[in-house]
Amino acid sequence: MDSEQKKYSIGFRVWIKEENGHYLGRGRITLLEQIKTNGSITKAAKAMQMSYRQAWQMVEDMNKLSNNILVEKILGGKGGGGAKLTKAGEEAIEIFYLLEEKIKNYTEKLSKEINL
Amino acid sequence: MDSEQKKYSIGFRVWIKEENGHYLGRGRITLLEQIKTNGSITKAAKAMQMSYRQAWQMVEDMNKLSNNILVEKILGGKGGGGAKLTKAGEEAIEIFYLLEEKIKNYTEKLSKEINL
Repeated sequence: MDSEQKKYSIGFRVWIKEENGHYLGRGRITLLEQIKTNGSITKAAKAMQMSYRQAWQMVEDMNKLSNNILVEKILGGKGGGGAKLTKAGEEAIEIFYLLEEKIKNYTEKLSKEINL
Repeated sequence: MDSEQKKYSIGFRVWIKEENGHYLGRGRITLLEQIKTNGSITKAAKAMQMSYRQAWQMVEDMNKLSNNILVEKILGGKGGGGAKLTKAGEEAIEIFYLLEEKIKNYTEKLSKEINL
């Protein structure tokens, strides 16, 4: 038997749901960040090793479930146009990280309170 | 465009980690509950549609990462013996649900505070 006391911590994942489905989680936030960096859904999809179709579907879903669209598609131009985040898209990233941080702080507090 | 305001809520999953690995999450808690109900790892595994080997490994991992073992194996007897939860095993279930409940309450509070 191990006589040392074990040390525990709390892990979590968090996401935001809308009444009609999954809205924002870590994966979608990463996609928004990649679109912001790359200015293109195609390049963002490539960076995340997913198909363009999958990434495009995620963008469609997010846009549909948000009060204001998060990603604006820029049509035409060389390479078939690009995409960029709207103000609401930038804010969605911030809100998600704020949420994660608050829950992280709370779980750290809980891990001392609860006799794990 | 949809002119109604969307309604958001926060979803989460939580688990307890020990320095040497994953300790307790929803799946392992369900296994503990099934062992408690069935008095047997074999029957618990069957109820959860997992192999005996998988269930047994999960029990071994939990026992190794806890200060006091959670599942006690009862050797011999008809059908190759059974298994039952120790007091620490019963407590682990309670602690996990308490943790989930506290985080649920906190996320409900946050979903009003944060401008989702």
